[in-house]
Order: sequence, then C-alpha cells, then structure tokens
Amino acid sequence: MAILPAPLQDLINALERLPGIGPKTASRLAFFLLRAPDDLSQQLAEALQQLKQATGFCNICHNITLSSQQECEICANDQRDASLICVVEEPSDVLAIERTDGFQGRYHVLQGVISPIEGVGPDDLKVKSLIKRVADGGIKEVIIATNPSMEGDATALYLRRQLAPYGVRITRLARGLPVGGDLEYADQNTLLRALAGRQEL
Amino acid sequence: MAILPAPLQDLINALERLPGIGPKTASRLAFFLLRAPDDLSQQLAEALQQLKQATGFCNICHNITLSSQQECEICANDQRDASLICVVEEPSDVLAIERTDGFQGRYHVLQGVISPIEGVGPDDLKVKSLIKRVADGGIKEVIIATNPSMEGDATALYLRRQLAPYGVRITRLARGLPVGGDLEYADQNTLLRALAGRQEL
Repeated sequence: MAILPAPLQDLINALERLPGIGPKTASRLAFFLLRAPDDLSQQLAEALQQLKQATGFCNICHNITLSSQQECEICANDQRDASLICVVEEPSDVLAIERTDGFQGRYHVLQGVISPIEGVGPDDLKVKSLIKRVADGGIKEVIIATNPSMEGDATALYLRRQLAPYGVRITRLARGLPVGGDLEYADQNTLLRALAGRQEL
Repeated sequence: MAILPAPLQDLINALERLPGIGPKTASRLAFFLLRAPDDLSQQLAEALQQLKQATGFCNICHNITLSSQQECEICANDQRDASLICVVEEPSDVLAIERTDGFQGRYHVLQGVISPIEGVGPDDLKVKSLIKRVADGGIKEVIIATNPSMEGDATALYLRRQLAPYGVRITRLARGLPVGGDLEYADQNTLLRALAGRQEL
C-alpha cells in the first residue's frame, strides 16, 4: 500500500488529535485543505499560532482574555453587577451563559472541576481566588453553575462548605426537564430531579 | 453579550470554513485547543503551512506527491503493472483504492470531474495527458473509476469516446448493492443497477 506524502500524513495525524475527529474525518479535512485556496490553510495556521500567544486569563475571574489585558471585558465592565458571581468550570461555559442574555453579574472560572479519578483536587482549581473575592466583601450571591455531573455536584458541595462562613447566598442552577424535551425520553435522574424541584403553577 | 477575545474568534471563524464543521463544533475545537498542550496547536499550524509548500503533483498521473519529487511513489514503482491505468477524480480516491489492496496497476488522477453546472469541462481536467499516456502505447486496460454520480458517468462516457480509437480495453467499476447493505433500504437506482448487472452464481 502506497504511503501518503509526509506533509499530508502529518496534517492528518495532527487533525486526528482533535476531539470528535477520527481518521476518516481527518483525511477528508486534509484533502479538502489541499484543494482549498491557499489563504484558508494560511488563515488557520496563523489563528492557531496566535491563539496561545495572544490570549491569557483574566486576573480576577480567570476567564480567557487578551494577553495584553489584565482584566477581561466582563470584569472591566462597570455595568455588570459586581455583587453577583456565577462560578463555572470553563471559559466556554461563560460563553454559553452570555448567549442566554439572562445574566448581568460577573463570573469566576474554576478552570476545571474536582475529580478524584483524574487526580484533580481543589488546589488545582481557581478556588482560593474565589474565596478571596467573597471574603473581600461586596458579594451578595454566588451562583454555582458547574456541570450537572458527579464532579460538578461534588465541586458545588465543596464550594458551598468553603463559602458558608461568609454569609453570602449560595445557589445552584435548577435541574429539571430540558425545554423542548420529551418526558418520555427523559432519563430517570432528570425526571426525579424535575419531580423534586416541582414549582407552583 | 461579551465578545470572545479576537484570537479565539479568529480561530473559530477559520475552523468554520472547513466542511462539516459548524459554529458549535468550531467553538468546541477552539476551546479544546486553548486548553490542549502547546505542541498540538503548534503541530497543526506547522502541518498546515507545510501542506502546500511541500506537496506537489506527480508529472505522470497527477496524484499528490512531495514537491521534491517528479513522480509519485506509485508511478516510480517498477512492481506496479504499467499496462493497467485506473482513472479517478481526486487523490483521495487513490487512497481509497490503495486501501483495498486489490489493485496493482497505476493511476491517473483527473483532478476533478466534468460538470457543466460548475463550468468544468474536459480541458479543465487532466484528460490530455491521459490520452497521451494511452496513445504512447503499452496500456492494455483503462479502468474508469470516477464516482457513480451523474458527473462521474458523464466523464466516463466522454473518456470512453476519447480513448476508443486506441483499441485498449475500457472498463468501469461495477454498480450494485453495497456489501453489508440492506436490500430493503437500497435506493431504486442502485437496485435497478444491481438487477441489470446480476451475475451467474
């Protein structure tokens, strides 16, 4: 069997390391890039090189920001409610919540989740700076928006314990049936949570 | 709504231009690359830049090869049957056929297919060099392995007409039910072709 030219094989190998991209997709993308106008692979290559060089993390909330800035745009924005902190696992979670247009407070990005299996403890996360933000005062409520998973729940419980002494309101995102979902296809746990969390009509 | 830092948004925009990658996947890949070790985005960026610089096309069959080589590995391989030419549309088709390990001849890559809708005529493809290869003699059979589509069929008919004067055997890949497929779910045309092409058991 003939071997692909090394540059093409290299690209396929690199693409295969991306999540959700298997050998077939990687090969399809590589052949597409081969035929595509030069500026596409150039644009991709430049964006990849810029990614790590030009981005950094906000000194306050640890969300992703330009490396030239100390604070992210949300922390630097006076219009946002500084007494309300939404704690999330990853920068992509900030984007998801911002898209709803339903939250006007600030964020705190843990940059991970407590996971004994993967050997990630509280000290590996941005927990200390969260406690400091709350201890410094001016915070009324901390919304814990870690994922509705085992690890997310464990992290939420840990944070609740750590933040309890400061007397701030601590909340967690509601669990229940997804909007547009079908009761018949909801899994048992979701249905149990939806029952337990039922609300007055 | 907060805007993503420009370098991240640039990468998402570039990824979205790839086939089969929508806004959600692009965003997921970009956030993954942000957290991934530096060498992954570096490896990808380098592979992308190398792709066009270091690859070229074989002078004989127009398959992809290293830009430092005049001929691809298949054309340069004396072990391969030079009297048998398999005509395909794209370099990726060569890979697909090589993977079967069932073909020991040479290839000819048209680098496209005749498509009046997209304004692609025979002169835009590597047809002339195919005719020259056949005219130069030594060829016994030309297998036309363009896609089993309208355009692929039209191209096959066109090539048959062009190659007829040279008295070589001209064949086309068999059409029928895909192996492992289900008769019930086969489309009408495939079933018609499978009936018409039925073989003695």
